[in-house]
Amino acid sequence: MIVDANVVSFDAISLDCGATLAPVQVAYETYGVLDQAKSNAILILHAFSGDAHAAGISHETGKPGWWDNMIGPGKAFDTDKYFVICANVLGGCRGTTGPSSINPQTGCPYAMSFPVITIADMVRLQKMLIDYLGVHRLLCVSGGSMGGMQALQWAVSYPEAVASAIPIATTARHSAQQIAFNEVGRQAIIADPDWNDGNYYGKKPPARGLAVARMVGHITYMSDDSMREKFGRRLRGKDAFGFDFDVDFEVESYLRYRGSEFVTRFDANSYLYITKAMDYFDLTNDHKSLATVFEKGDTRFLALSFTSDWLYPSYQSQEIVRALRSRNRDVAYCELPSNYGHDAFLVDVAEQTNLVRGFLARVYREASK
Amino acid sequence: MIVDANVVSFDAISLDCGATLAPVQVAYETYGVLDQAKSNAILILHAFSGDAHAAGISHETGKPGWWDNMIGPGKAFDTDKYFVICANVLGGCRGTTGPSSINPQTGCPYAMSFPVITIADMVRLQKMLIDYLGVHRLLCVSGGSMGGMQALQWAVSYPEAVASAIPIATTARHSAQQIAFNEVGRQAIIADPDWNDGNYYGKKPPARGLAVARMVGHITYMSDDSMREKFGRRLRGKDAFGFDFDVDFEVESYLRYRGSEFVTRFDANSYLYITKAMDYFDLTNDHKSLATVFEKGDTRFLALSFTSDWLYPSYQSQEIVRALRSRNRDVAYCELPSNYGHDAFLVDVAEQTNLVRGFLARVYREASK
Repeated sequence: MIVDANVVSFDAISLDCGATLAPVQVAYETYGVLDQAKSNAILILHAFSGDAHAAGISHETGKPGWWDNMIGPGKAFDTDKYFVICANVLGGCRGTTGPSSINPQTGCPYAMSFPVITIADMVRLQKMLIDYLGVHRLLCVSGGSMGGMQALQWAVSYPEAVASAIPIATTARHSAQQIAFNEVGRQAIIADPDWNDGNYYGKKPPARGLAVARMVGHITYMSDDSMREKFGRRLRGKDAFGFDFDVDFEVESYLRYRGSEFVTRFDANSYLYITKAMDYFDLTNDHKSLATVFEKGDTRFLALSFTSDWLYPSYQSQEIVRALRSRNRDVAYCELPSNYGHDAFLVDVAEQTNLVRGFLARVYREASK
Repeated sequence: MIVDANVVSFDAISLDCGATLAPVQVAYETYGVLDQAKSNAILILHAFSGDAHAAGISHETGKPGWWDNMIGPGKAFDTDKYFVICANVLGGCRGTTGPSSINPQTGCPYAMSFPVITIADMVRLQKMLIDYLGVHRLLCVSGGSMGGMQALQWAVSYPEAVASAIPIATTARHSAQQIAFNEVGRQAIIADPDWNDGNYYGKKPPARGLAVARMVGHITYMSDDSMREKFGRRLRGKDAFGFDFDVDFEVESYLRYRGSEFVTRFDANSYLYITKAMDYFDLTNDHKSLATVFEKGDTRFLALSFTSDWLYPSYQSQEIVRALRSRNRDVAYCELPSNYGHDAFLVDVAEQTNLVRGFLARVYREASK
């Protein structure tokens, strides 16, 4: 399945902070075919560092999508049955308008003059895309981590437009610990002199700060167990301790590689804006209880979490489930056993596939009645 | 209890890496009185960022010691009964020889020419101090975190010189996850251009990198629960979201404060050397099993860990206890309930006090027979 990226431009979008972005562009991909009734569309929502290339092989790069093990013919999100859409988020750096985009008023990149964005803003832009594609009601919205936040926000912002939602390994609001890890990443970027108050476009980007930020991220995405299994205390290319400050352990080598690889594909200012959007995220922001937030709509939910995910622990999914249940909403919840930590929703997909497939079949059947 | 710092200098110390440091200096404090039989001496071992000032009020700074709630008249380490010693570790920056010390061969600070050190090297220097103080057998060695590693190393390196050991919230070897968190801190420092390959003495120190490293540390020292209780999602000095990149949340403000405060009292190169010593630490380095390592000696053990400590989880203490038990060694173990995470051994000391007090009384009684 070779896929092409698409881009659509809209005149303007109004943001939660009061600002307007004009114009605004969205990069997206689609897989499968939209049926005549336009009833089989599923919107996939990517996590922090993801992009629109969720499935298939990119025509441009030759690389598989970030959730290719979940999306495709016969897979969990079965493209023989469903029309699957994935868009790069607002504030991103992979085709959708973000801080690295040119501000038409100045002819220069927005950099830190880009307005602060929220998860609800990301969803508002996705709604414009869905409308543009002629889809009035999505069969499902689904994603893990920040993708799960967007799925929840969809069900709250546009309940009538979402038949079902599958939030995975996510939360209804960022905890102090989650904010803290993001803040360390931001400070690592800001501490890099090459960041230069965000004005590094066309110059040397803050690669060292961004790499350190990514290293912190990677530790939180794995579990203590999965790190032990993958690296243990194995030394890299040495028979005994080298007693120097070069790489000693395989885990160090892995983190440095992940850090330096990340800077080739991600914009540091997008890191700042998107992590802030995650930290601001709180479905109860307006001081209603979470149960009250879920009062409207008939969206069905399947919430999933993973036993070894300590970044988005199961108790956060269970909080969502309790709030939905307390309003008699249709919600199924499973905590899946996995050693892969937060990464599980990306890599440990066998049981996730069965649950998603069954849930979608039921929702599709009932929507087609 | 006003206390003075002491310093003693030794001609030389041989290190695990094969190098010799000459001379070598140790900063230490003592509390209480050494009895005539020299049988009541307890060596306290500090954690990563600690120093020799464990108890009382410093004559120099007016500040209480880092374990003042555990050491003093009537406290867990009762200075009415015991003679308590605490020394800054080798490689440190608080009076003991470390990378910021002057290399007598060059007249300049060692910086990165300082030899790589190990936990066993730290203990070797402490043994020289104990010999100098005329103590042949310590009643007890105790410390939390890296202090616990030193306590274990003492019992392995000098079993005849240690009547008892209380390793707290520690491990017999650093895991991949623990190495990973340390590596992020090191990379944050090394990424700071002011680090300048370690040659920043007399110039601008790598304050931004060191602050980021410390922020990562502080997250790992707390628990998800304790962060929620302390900060929640409370905003700092704002009624609503400010939508900017200034500090929004109290947890951000706390981390930034902790980071910037740390750079006034800690040397970045010491950060590199001491975290490497922790990462190298593995009592089974020579490929013996942990049980074999604990075969020699009659040191009695009290091992403590805390329920919410995810940086040094209880399973690591339990591994030590199983190895000791398998060799019929005298070992007591308690997992203490606490919400304070790894910080618990420093701040949540009521139950810890009772256990340490009772254990020491028994060891002292039997040692005095």
